[in-house]
Amino acid sequence: MTKDQIAQRFKLLQEKIVSDLTSIDGKQSFQTDTWERAEGGGGKTMTIADGGIIEKGGVAFSKVYGDVSAVMKKQLGLDGDSFFATGVSIVLHPSNPFIPIIHMNVRYFELDSGVYWFGGGIDLTPHYIDMKLATDFHLGLKQICDKYNPDFYSKFKVQADDYFFIPHRNETRGIGGIFFDHQVHDENVSKQNLFDFCTELGESFPKLYGHQVEMNKSKTYTDEHIQWRNHRRGRYVEFNLVNDRGTKFGLLSVGRTESILMSLPPLANWTYCHEIKPLSKEFETQRKLVKAYPWIDGE
Amino acid sequence: MTKDQIAQRFKLLQEKIVSDLTSIDGKQSFQTDTWERAEGGGGKTMTIADGGIIEKGGVAFSKVYGDVSAVMKKQLGLDGDSFFATGVSIVLHPSNPFIPIIHMNVRYFELDSGVYWFGGGIDLTPHYIDMKLATDFHLGLKQICDKYNPDFYSKFKVQADDYFFIPHRNETRGIGGIFFDHQVHDENVSKQNLFDFCTELGESFPKLYGHQVEMNKSKTYTDEHIQWRNHRRGRYVEFNLVNDRGTKFGLLSVGRTESILMSLPPLANWTYCHEIKPLSKEFETQRKLVKAYPWIDGE
Repeated sequence: MTKDQIAQRFKLLQEKIVSDLTSIDGKQSFQTDTWERAEGGGGKTMTIADGGIIEKGGVAFSKVYGDVSAVMKKQLGLDGDSFFATGVSIVLHPSNPFIPIIHMNVRYFELDSGVYWFGGGIDLTPHYIDMKLATDFHLGLKQICDKYNPDFYSKFKVQADDYFFIPHRNETRGIGGIFFDHQVHDENVSKQNLFDFCTELGESFPKLYGHQVEMNKSKTYTDEHIQWRNHRRGRYVEFNLVNDRGTKFGLLSVGRTESILMSLPPLANWTYCHEIKPLSKEFETQRKLVKAYPWIDGE
Repeated sequence: MTKDQIAQRFKLLQEKIVSDLTSIDGKQSFQTDTWERAEGGGGKTMTIADGGIIEKGGVAFSKVYGDVSAVMKKQLGLDGDSFFATGVSIVLHPSNPFIPIIHMNVRYFELDSGVYWFGGGIDLTPHYIDMKLATDFHLGLKQICDKYNPDFYSKFKVQADDYFFIPHRNETRGIGGIFFDHQVHDENVSKQNLFDFCTELGESFPKLYGHQVEMNKSKTYTDEHIQWRNHRRGRYVEFNLVNDRGTKFGLLSVGRTESILMSLPPLANWTYCHEIKPLSKEFETQRKLVKAYPWIDGE
C-alpha cells in the first residue's frame, strides 16, 4: 500500500461522505473548491451552507508534499527532508440547536525516511447533551475500535478527553469521542489494519451522525435555544483558534486559510460572564462538560 | 511616582472613561465586576451590553503582582523574581456597522529589580472605512504624540501596522493607530512624561471615539451591512485569539478568562470564501486593509 493509494482511498472517502451527507441534509448540495499548493500538492474542499440540516459545513480532502520546512522541524519535531501528508477532515454546524456539531478527521503522514503514521479522531459537540444519544455515539465508536484492537477505544477515548479540552474555560468542547496520533503498526496491528481502521471510521461517519440528526431534527426550538447554540459555538471557535494543534500549525505554516478555518461556525456569540439558570437544560449540559465523563457506563 | 500611584491614576482613568462612554452611549450604564487574583492583586471589569451605541463593550482595570512564574520567564523573557503590572484596556463593539470597533490599552510593568516599562496602543477597526474619519483619527493621535516626542507618532504608527496585522489573512485588522511597548525614559522623555502620555491617551479616548460615533450614528443600515459587520467581527476574533500577544499570554498564564475575552464581539460570522462584489463599499474597505497605509497623507 503506497502513499498515493492511501491518498486515492481518502479521496473516495470524501466523495462517499459528501454523497451521504447530501442525503442527510436533504436540501442543499456541496460546492467544490479545488486548490493547489505552490510547494506541492493541493486539495479539494467541499462545503455546504444554509442546508436543511447543516447551516455551515465542510468535508475537505488534501494531499500535500514537499520539503520539511524549518517551522515544521521545530514545531512538529520532524526528522526528515521531505514529507507527504493526506487526510480528510469534516466539521458540520447544524442550524437546529438540538442537533450536535460534529468533527472528524483521518490523516496519513510519511517522511522520506520511510517513517509514517496514521492519525485521526471524531468528536461530538452537542449544544444540549442527550444522555442516550451520547452513549449511542460512544458505543458506535467503541464497536468500530473493538474490531481492530480491544485497547483502542479506552485509549483513544482518554486521548480525546485530553485533546478536546479548553483549559482557559476548564471545560471540554463537547462529549469527546476518540482521538489518536502517531499510530504505527506493531505486533497486534498491521499498517493495513490501521489504514482499514481509518477508512472504516470515515465510512461509518455518516451513519453515526445521521442517527444524531434523525433523533433531533424534528425538535422545535426558540430564540433562547439559538442564543445558547451561538454561545456554545463561541466556545468552539475558542478551542479551534486557541487550542487546536492542527489549526495553529496550519495557520503558521503550510496551509490554505479558508480550508483550515472552514471549521468555524456561521453565527457565534460572546456575552460577558454568560449566566446559566440553575437546573436548566443549559445547566445540565454545562455540568457534564468535564474530562473523563463515562459516557458508556452512564451516570 | 510609585507603582501604586500609577495604578491609582489608571483606576481614575477607568472611571472617567466609563463616565464619558455612558454619555456617548446614551442608553445603558456599565456593570461592575470586581475580581481578585489568588496570587496577588485583582481588577475591576466594567461592561456594557445592548446599549444605544455599544452592543458589547468593556473597560477593564487591573493591578496584579506576585512571583514571576516559569511560563512568564519563558514567554516574556522576564528577568526577575516578582512583578507588578497595572493597566486599563478597552474594546467596544458598536451595533451600527458604520461605527467602528475600537480598542485601547495603557499599561505599566515593573520588576523587583526596578526595571519598568510603559506600553499601550489605540487602534480603530471600521467595518466600513471613511477616509476623512480615518485621517481624523490618526491626526488626533499624532497631536497627542507630538506633545511628548516628535518621533512618537511615526514610530508607533509603524508598530501598530505591524502589530494589528493578521498574517493568515494577509490583511490588517483595521486602520491601525499607535502601538508601543517597553517604553522607558531616555534623554528626551522622562518617566513622568511617559506616564503623562499614557494618561493623556486614555483621557482623549472618549473624545476620539465620540467623534467617530457622532459622524456615523444616524446612518441607516440594512441586513447586508450587518452581514459584513459580522464578517469583520469574525476577523477581529481571529486576530484576538490567534495573533494578539496579550490575549495569548493571558489565557496561558496569569489571567481571568472572562476579562481577557471581553474583547470578543457579540455576534460574529464566518462564511466559507466570503465573496466581495467588485467596487462595492465592502471592496473599498477591504483593499485598504494593507500595512503602512498613509492615513494622514491621504490617497
